[in-house]
Amino acid sequence: MIFRAVVGTGESVAYPVPTYSLYDTLADVQEARVVRIPTGPTFAVPIAELARARARLTIICNPNSPSGTLTPVSEIATLARRLRGRMLVVDEAYVDFASDSAMRLLRNYSNLVVLRTLSKSFSLAGMRLGLCFAHPRVIAELLKVKDSYNLSRIALAAGAAALDDAAWMRRNVERVCKTRVETERRLRALGFVVPPSEANFVLARMPGRDMGPIASGLRRAGILVRHFATPALRDALRISIGRPSEMRQLIAALADLLDGAPRSTARRAGR
Amino acid sequence: MIFRAVVGTGESVAYPVPTYSLYDTLADVQEARVVRIPTGPTFAVPIAELARARARLTIICNPNSPSGTLTPVSEIATLARRLRGRMLVVDEAYVDFASDSAMRLLRNYSNLVVLRTLSKSFSLAGMRLGLCFAHPRVIAELLKVKDSYNLSRIALAAGAAALDDAAWMRRNVERVCKTRVETERRLRALGFVVPPSEANFVLARMPGRDMGPIASGLRRAGILVRHFATPALRDALRISIGRPSEMRQLIAALADLLDGAPRSTARRAGR
Repeated sequence: MIFRAVVGTGESVAYPVPTYSLYDTLADVQEARVVRIPTGPTFAVPIAELARARARLTIICNPNSPSGTLTPVSEIATLARRLRGRMLVVDEAYVDFASDSAMRLLRNYSNLVVLRTLSKSFSLAGMRLGLCFAHPRVIAELLKVKDSYNLSRIALAAGAAALDDAAWMRRNVERVCKTRVETERRLRALGFVVPPSEANFVLARMPGRDMGPIASGLRRAGILVRHFATPALRDALRISIGRPSEMRQLIAALADLLDGAPRSTARRAGR
Repeated sequence: MIFRAVVGTGESVAYPVPTYSLYDTLADVQEARVVRIPTGPTFAVPIAELARARARLTIICNPNSPSGTLTPVSEIATLARRLRGRMLVVDEAYVDFASDSAMRLLRNYSNLVVLRTLSKSFSLAGMRLGLCFAHPRVIAELLKVKDSYNLSRIALAAGAAALDDAAWMRRNVERVCKTRVETERRLRALGFVVPPSEANFVLARMPGRDMGPIASGLRRAGILVRHFATPALRDALRISIGRPSEMRQLIAALADLLDGAPRSTARRAGR
């Protein structure tokens, strides 16, 4: 809805890439001019370049998907200041798994919009519930073009109940973060480069090696991870954090596949 | 979503008025040029004028709200033919209460879109569920700009279950239509002009008499009806069909209010 409300045909949208691929689709629907600014191997967001792009709408997914990396909130503040008069959206879909949030900047930057979702840390993906935080003047403008009744009564009830039990969410987040740290450690032990994740997934890379066959091998073993067939990400797997037992299965399967060892049914059955 | 997909800034939308007031809002959001064609006291849709308007998007609410009147499907066919190459949307929100539907025209008119909702006859207003029927080529274009995951999993499950039990809906519709016929008869006996309704509401008019005070009187008696403070409709009340006992209460309250009899608590309590 932010795209629809803010960006007209031929107007510009800027974001660092790689990032959440839906932004490309939403920009296409608006027939926007897209400025994609590559982040390079560390996934550090090029704040100065984004500011110089002076787009009508700038978006940072923070923590970013698929890298899991967090842009420091001080840099978000710098960007918001330099973009004053232009809108900066911080998509905090995964922020409950992270160490910081841009929410406190809203008081000082009326061009800042922070997006949240109940699909990740609150485990309510099926309810399609999102939240938008911004200056009251910005919210008032967005309400003018919002679909009337854009949420069902059940979604509203589920969302209110979920927010009332944030403690449940935090216990879950703690478990995920603990498993994430252990998973990063074990992936690095297998030779992967893993940027420090502040999300509920990690990006595991073997620079220069196409991870497509490894993703396929995992799928045959009943383990679903995400492989992106793009030049920047073909050497990476995005792995969602599951239960500790599931992550142990993943690590074992990865170890097998990286060895190039034939997948022996007998051996798998014997585990 | 049809507005968003079809109408750009300055492009034209045409519809007969009075009709569902959301069309004005949706047209405003698109910054469309709106051609409103008055229907006059019988609410008959001026097909020839709509055809001559040659709008990019033409809409007919059928049965219409707030009049309850049904435009014959043969006239919809004529309009679709004359608008060939331009989109004609028939909003059939109330069609399950009516004697005919434009659905069978879809095979012959690729510029026709039929909209349905589960909010009325299926009693699922809180789920925000709608359906769109059109030529596969039109649907394919709409899917390009549809929000991804625009329905929650619960809404999808509820919608599928509702459609699987259309017999329940039809029994309900039969009861509503029976009560509607009786309500129309009693309203006419009170002196109202009531266009023949094919919806789950009726429009009761006293030509030239402002019904605002009557609507307020009903509200004080705990009965909610719709009064539109517009020149064309200030002499009318839109009355939703409820249970027979509720409609008897309404008729009694209307009789009191029209007499100008003082609302006596003793008398009401004594009933």
